[in-house]
Amino acid sequence: MLDPVPPATELHGACSVGLDVGGTKVHGVLLGPDGTVLGDERRPTRQGPEGVLASVEDVVGALVGPVGIAVGDLGGIGVGIPGLVDPGTGCVTHAVNVGIRGEPFPLADRLASRTGGVPVAVDNDLNVAAVGAAHHLARQGRGSEAGAELAYLALGTGLAAGIVLGGRLRRGVSGAVGEIGHVPVDPRGPRCACGQRGCLEVYASGSALASRWPVAPGLHAPAELFAAAARGDALAVTVRDEFLDAVAVAVQMLVLTYDVADVVIGGGVSALGEPLLTGVAAALAARGELSPFLATLNMADRVSLTPAGVPVAAVGAALVSRREVS
Amino acid sequence: MLDPVPPATELHGACSVGLDVGGTKVHGVLLGPDGTVLGDERRPTRQGPEGVLASVEDVVGALVGPVGIAVGDLGGIGVGIPGLVDPGTGCVTHAVNVGIRGEPFPLADRLASRTGGVPVAVDNDLNVAAVGAAHHLARQGRGSEAGAELAYLALGTGLAAGIVLGGRLRRGVSGAVGEIGHVPVDPRGPRCACGQRGCLEVYASGSALASRWPVAPGLHAPAELFAAAARGDALAVTVRDEFLDAVAVAVQMLVLTYDVADVVIGGGVSALGEPLLTGVAAALAARGELSPFLATLNMADRVSLTPAGVPVAAVGAALVSRREVS
Repeated sequence: MLDPVPPATELHGACSVGLDVGGTKVHGVLLGPDGTVLGDERRPTRQGPEGVLASVEDVVGALVGPVGIAVGDLGGIGVGIPGLVDPGTGCVTHAVNVGIRGEPFPLADRLASRTGGVPVAVDNDLNVAAVGAAHHLARQGRGSEAGAELAYLALGTGLAAGIVLGGRLRRGVSGAVGEIGHVPVDPRGPRCACGQRGCLEVYASGSALASRWPVAPGLHAPAELFAAAARGDALAVTVRDEFLDAVAVAVQMLVLTYDVADVVIGGGVSALGEPLLTGVAAALAARGELSPFLATLNMADRVSLTPAGVPVAAVGAALVSRREVS
Repeated sequence: MLDPVPPATELHGACSVGLDVGGTKVHGVLLGPDGTVLGDERRPTRQGPEGVLASVEDVVGALVGPVGIAVGDLGGIGVGIPGLVDPGTGCVTHAVNVGIRGEPFPLADRLASRTGGVPVAVDNDLNVAAVGAAHHLARQGRGSEAGAELAYLALGTGLAAGIVLGGRLRRGVSGAVGEIGHVPVDPRGPRCACGQRGCLEVYASGSALASRWPVAPGLHAPAELFAAAARGDALAVTVRDEFLDAVAVAVQMLVLTYDVADVVIGGGVSALGEPLLTGVAAALAARGELSPFLATLNMADRVSLTPAGVPVAAVGAALVSRREVS
């Protein structure tokens, strides 16, 4: 999966590290000058601000050593983190999964001072994943990275999207870009944790599936649901198809607002793989059969899945550290 | 309402004309080098491709004559038209309100050849209105035109939005930008003309009000409804408040996807003026009371109305002809 590593002399100042900080692990990649992945490392996430900083440093160290450069030789370090981030200052305000709450934590400044001044960018995990997904599609020959028009739709615990327009991350004015999980789609729907009724997130997210298809601890609700539906369990078929239609509505909302060329589905639920993609495409096609207008939009052709084994968030974080995309 | 006109020698090549082609009239403005409105003319719309072309030429002629320049001295002509337009070629594919259907009509080329080669831009009416609304807000001191982050939400017969990001029109990849009227918001709602059920347009548009509050020919359904509600008619209050909440959902959808600083409400229903703005702001505030997350977004503060008497679509068309915004 890794690309061949050029001599260290060619890498000085030209490589960057990207880190995807999750609740359980920090996943890092070393990105070469031409955007190839030269290294890939994971370490457990230690909790709290100092824990996150130490975990990140561990991964950075593990990535640079084998290729023969020092941390200070990196051109940039990018960090994607699930929570509220100020990308201008690199402060993390709130990232409950990794134990950062209360005081804003100046992760970019702290990391820069520990690495001898390497430029550090910190951003929201969806944003970096969107940038990484655009990079991946371009490398697959699907459009150009500089002209990417893409939504990264994360089906995780919640539902939200990161947006890349004209190859650049869209940030908006208040951090609310892509928060489509809290658009109401059924006025008589169940109460959402946000306080409204019938939010899209109540139907199209990992937590929606977990509550509609409870499973034993350690099992993956989406996988169990899809397996039961494939065996012909009638209730599972209903729950699965309602979920797929809700994801189709999320795709439709992104197409009818942004009119992006690509909607890449990621997040924990995307581990379902092909059955998820096939199911969402079928739900979009069914919506197109209802509405000739929707049919003209070829929504199913715009949808793809984050490919298994491609660390889009970590790669995107490395690209964000190069600043040209954000 | 017009600004003082500089000497003709200062205007050669530096003025542009913008035209808002509607089903009954063509409204044109002459825009000076600094973006001030130097002339304002209306003529009835003649139907069909040749009729539209002739009406547009009438208005252009009426605008340039009084300031002492010839049509060929214009720096550009921009045309906003309600329908399917290819802004790259300036062809109008389908504009049923002005009798253009069937063969694409090369309006930009035809007009350019009749004006001695003045650059002509043709765009969708919502797009030019969005550009004009951004220009107007900047002139009112609300943000900079170059940095405008704005959605122009048109409550006309249908419901759709034009989008300006970073001062530039968003076009998308298939002409579907801002088509939020066809996002479903109630799975058990009435059938929409598009074929789906419960589209947002079924609740938040002029045609929605006309069907829920029928009035005698010649009367304005929104005005009659709001007047009846103001008099205390219980049914009118219900219909009005459901309409206002649906408009609030449209605003919320734009904020939770684009996170724009401003949502400017225009279209025929916006002639209601202050009661519409107050009502939408109250509906947004009520949604914020349901959801602390929504409350943080200050949605009511982002909403304004197209000001009466300001020809945002015509001004926007003139700006689009200068190309730097599109």
